[in-house]
This record gives sequence, C-alpha cells and structure tokens, in this order.
Amino acid sequence: MPELRQNPATKEWVIIATERAKRPEELGTGVINTPPNAKDSCPFCPGNEKMTPHELFSYRTYGTAPDTPGWWIRVIPNMYPALQPQGNPDRVEIENLFLCMNGIGEHEVLIESPEHTDSLATMSQKQIEEIFLAYRERYIAMSQDPRFEMITIFKNHGLNAGTSLHHPHSQIIATPITPMHIRHRIQEAMRYFDDHGSCVYCDIIEKERKLGDRVVAETENFIVLEPFAARTPFETVVIPKTHASTFDSIPPERCKELAYVMRLTLVKLSRSLNSPDYNYIVFSSPCHERSLEYYHWYIMILPRVAAVAGFELGSGIYINTVIPESAAKFLRETPFE
Amino acid sequence: MPELRQNPATKEWVIIATERAKRPEELGTGVINTPPNAKDSCPFCPGNEKMTPHELFSYRTYGTAPDTPGWWIRVIPNMYPALQPQGNPDRVEIENLFLCMNGIGEHEVLIESPEHTDSLATMSQKQIEEIFLAYRERYIAMSQDPRFEMITIFKNHGLNAGTSLHHPHSQIIATPITPMHIRHRIQEAMRYFDDHGSCVYCDIIEKERKLGDRVVAETENFIVLEPFAARTPFETVVIPKTHASTFDSIPPERCKELAYVMRLTLVKLSRSLNSPDYNYIVFSSPCHERSLEYYHWYIMILPRVAAVAGFELGSGIYINTVIPESAAKFLRETPFE
Repeated sequence: MPELRQNPATKEWVIIATERAKRPEELGTGVINTPPNAKDSCPFCPGNEKMTPHELFSYRTYGTAPDTPGWWIRVIPNMYPALQPQGNPDRVEIENLFLCMNGIGEHEVLIESPEHTDSLATMSQKQIEEIFLAYRERYIAMSQDPRFEMITIFKNHGLNAGTSLHHPHSQIIATPITPMHIRHRIQEAMRYFDDHGSCVYCDIIEKERKLGDRVVAETENFIVLEPFAARTPFETVVIPKTHASTFDSIPPERCKELAYVMRLTLVKLSRSLNSPDYNYIVFSSPCHERSLEYYHWYIMILPRVAAVAGFELGSGIYINTVIPESAAKFLRETPFE
Repeated sequence: MPELRQNPATKEWVIIATERAKRPEELGTGVINTPPNAKDSCPFCPGNEKMTPHELFSYRTYGTAPDTPGWWIRVIPNMYPALQPQGNPDRVEIENLFLCMNGIGEHEVLIESPEHTDSLATMSQKQIEEIFLAYRERYIAMSQDPRFEMITIFKNHGLNAGTSLHHPHSQIIATPITPMHIRHRIQEAMRYFDDHGSCVYCDIIEKERKLGDRVVAETENFIVLEPFAARTPFETVVIPKTHASTFDSIPPERCKELAYVMRLTLVKLSRSLNSPDYNYIVFSSPCHERSLEYYHWYIMILPRVAAVAGFELGSGIYINTVIPESAAKFLRETPFE
C-alpha cells in the first residue's frame, strides 16, 4: 500500500510508492521501471488490451466490447499506480511530529490514440477535442469521491519529460490532500483578490492583451501566452478568458476550441524547438473548492529544454535564457498549417 | 544585463539571463551551453588560469601569484553569470502588475581541486574541509553587500544534475531577493516555533535520534538523515545538531568534522547507487536575517536517480519509490573506509 507523508518542516507531502521500486543498485542508471515498449508488446496498442487492467472509460465504435479493439481513446488504471483507491483518509501522527496517511487516490492512464507513433502535434483536432472531453469526464467522475481533494491531469512527452513509453498517453491522479505547492498559489491569488477585488489571472489576461508582446495566439475564449516570468525557455500557458476556477467547468462544446488552441500551440512549439520533450499540466482549484472568485484554471506547457540543477532546487529561482517576448514573437511567426 | 522578474500570480522570481542563451533551434537538443571540456582545454585546470576571469579567492602555495598554478582551491566569477554585480536593486512595476528589477548579484564558481577527474567521493577529507572553509569565506564576503538577501551554495555533479563540466566545482550565487521557495520554508518554521516554542529542525533531530531508523550516521555535532518525507530515493540531509540559522555561523574548526560527515555520506551514496549524479545545496536563512530562533541551516543531497515529470511539476508532490528507512539501513550497512 502506498503511503503519503508530510515533511514536518515544509508541510510538503510526498508519496512513498514502493510498488514502483527498483533495487538501490539499479537506481544509479537513472532509468525508470517501465513496461516493454516495442510496438507488438506495447500494452497501449489495440489488440493488447488484455495486458492492461480493465478499462474505465473509452470512446469506441458502436457494438465493440470493452477491453477489445474498436476504441480511439481508452482510460485504464495505471499498471504501476502511485496511489490506490481502497482505504480511508485518516491521518496518523507519529511522535507528535511526523504526519502520514494511507496512499489512497486514483491513478489513471488516458491512451490518447490507437496509433503507437501518434502525437498531439500530429493528430487531428477532433482527436484532441475528444482527449479533453475524456479528461473532463474522468475529472468529474473522480471528483465525486469525497475523499479526494486534488485532481491533476498531466502529460509527459519524451524521456526528458519523465516517460520512456512512446505510445501517446496522459495521466490523471486524484490525491486525498491539497499539496502546499497548490495551496501557496491559491493563497497568493486570494491575497491579490482581497487587495484588488479581481482575479490575478483575469488581470494578467487583460494586461497581456493590452501589451501584446507576450501573446502567442488568441481565440474567442482562450489566450496563449509566454508568461512574464517564464521559468524556462518557451514555457507557454493556455488560459480560458472567461473566469472559472475548476477545469471541469469548461462547457463540453468549448473543448473543440480548446483543442484548436492546444494543437496550434503544440505544433508551433514542435516546429520551433525541433520536437522537444515536454510536460503539460492542467492547473485547477481543489475539486471540492468550486467557483472560487480568485482562482483560475489553465494549462501550463513546459518544454524540457533546460536542466533543473542545484540552484533551482535550492532557491526555487529558475534561470531562463530566452526572453519571453522573444519566444512569443518566434512562436507567432512560426507557421501552423 | 540579466533581469529578475516576479510572477504576479505566484510571487515566484525568475532570472532572465540571455547571455547564457542558445538559439531556439538549438534548444530542443537539451544540451546546455558550456565551455569545452577536454582536459587540455579545461578552463578549470592548472595552467589554464588565463581562460577564466581573475580569481577572487584561493588556497595556494606560498609565493605563487594569483591566476597562476600553485592553488588547490580557486574561486572565480562564473564565465556565464546568471547575475552581475553592477547596478541598483530598485524594482519597477509595469502596468501595476509585473514586477522586475536589474539582475544584480554575484555568481561565483569554486574549483574544488586542481585534478580534472577528482570528485568529493574520492578526494581527501582535508581537501573537503578546505572547500567548506572556502564556502564560508565567500558566504561572509558576499553577505557584506547590503543589496544581497540570499546566498545559495550548491553543487551540480554530472549531466543529470545539470552540468556537463567534469572538473569538480561548486557554485555560489547571491541574489537581491529572498525567493518564495525559501520564504515559505521560513514561514512554516516560524509557525511551528510559535506553536511549539522550539525549532522544528531541532525537534526533528531529537525525534530521529530517538527513533533511529532514518539515521545514517552521527558525530558530535552533525547528524545524517534520510528525511521522513524524502522526495526522491536516497535524498539525504546533513544537519548541524547545534541550533544555528545561517551557514556562516559554523565555527571554522568545525569544518573538519563537517568534511568527515560529507565525505562519509558521499562515499556511501556513491557506493550504494553506483556513482550517481547528484546535487547538494546548503540551505541557510537570508544573509541579513541572522540568529533566527526558528530556522536551521543544513545541507540537502539529492541523487538524481528519478525523473521529475508532469505530476511533480504540477502538484509539487514527489513520488518516492524507496522507503526512507530502507535507504537509511542500506546506507548504514554500506562500508565507508
């Protein structure tokens, strides 16, 4: 059973999940345990559905059975889960200092396409729309569980971004705690709201539209920006222009527009940076803290083109070698279609 | 001139330092700009002193001149500095939202040995003692400048830890701001102190000594622990047992004992994990916030044996695949001499 532990000095939680472990001698290699990845033995390829746990959700051809081919998006429990759904969320304090709890939660994999070599920068806008619709379905399903506080949707693309599985997939993790990393963001946004009477993200959108030089693209409901204080070269955010604090508040019909914007952004990043490894993360308020006036959901895309070294780990200050305005100009001028 | 910018939503500062930049097309390769690294062209090797800026400090043989051979520890300005010493620390707010300032600070490189292939796990205890004495000298020198708030001493060892320079070296960066990452730690420690009337780090030491199962080693004045909520396999901390909030408060004569403990820890980690890449960071309170009752300096050693992926970046929750008590036992049983 995984375990959640809190650092008593920093209040940061970690997951101790030894089911994913290697022996110490193997750790030095830097390679993470993963299932085999040749196409014929890929557990995410059609025909290999029996290699995975039973599917939780899919978009599939009428009349085809679960756990058989016929799907074009398939959601399954992670085969090496960081958290498991069984158990209660009681917390235990050891020696009046060390707080821990059962590692309960959900850890799902969303297989984004039946095609082993597909990627978000090459697939159709319709496919991306359905990926986001499926994220939304799973977000809503997980948020029904009162034990879960945060739902994190994220994608690791490429070895530098933390995956060695080629078959395109994202992950969704529900945790029974709101981590300090998110709480700090919420606190800062709350303080801004109390000071200014407005959402800091809404104000950023307004000022960035006025200034223009960090805007990569804009549609009716979304804006793509290089943040003023981007931490790494070509860090990019996709922000809904209408205020909403949780991801699942996106109207389903708006996922088409989001898919257009995400595809545009990922194609431009891919062309600009020579198909970089990247992560994206859907930031959202805790799932039971809904309709917050001061917080705003958005998607952060982080190309993994710079190393995180001791200074970043120690100080939290990132050194970015590309001026965000230059990156935005470069992306604006990169052709899309 | 580098620039410091603050994210208005999170209050995190970043450094925009384009002097270190590559062109966008080159970024996708993931390789950082570095000077050539063959031994004969290594700027850190004796005989090549003219390839670097003038030395700021050295331990060298009596009668030898600065910027010539004869040194065994040498401190120079970083050739690709993230921050520069000239300028004032005034802050400018753009559009009443985006805060920035000149990228002033110091960025120094401490060359740890004349030997190109040396490492802390192979060099003598005496050499490590003098490295820490030199850190202390530079920390004290930098902290004289009233413009600087934080001094971060850190080491990147190996490609996965963010360096491609083999010659053993550490870095010291003085920043004109205290970053949120550190401020949050201080706030939590302050709250603990207000609640309990004691330093949380002192209490951790006391409880860990009592429990024993996460203790790797202990000397008269230092304790080596696997933290209860270690974020990555074999994350290790070296903590002074006597309360002190800033690194430079270490008595010079105690650097011998610290060198013994650091060497023991790095040798054991190297043997346990097959010479892993690693970072270490000296955590200390801001340099003008001295003698704090509630904060405690220490050294964090992070072997880079696990990937930081989308979940960690999005939630701040790390997934650790090795139980800290198992790592501590493994390290205790790993021979040292």
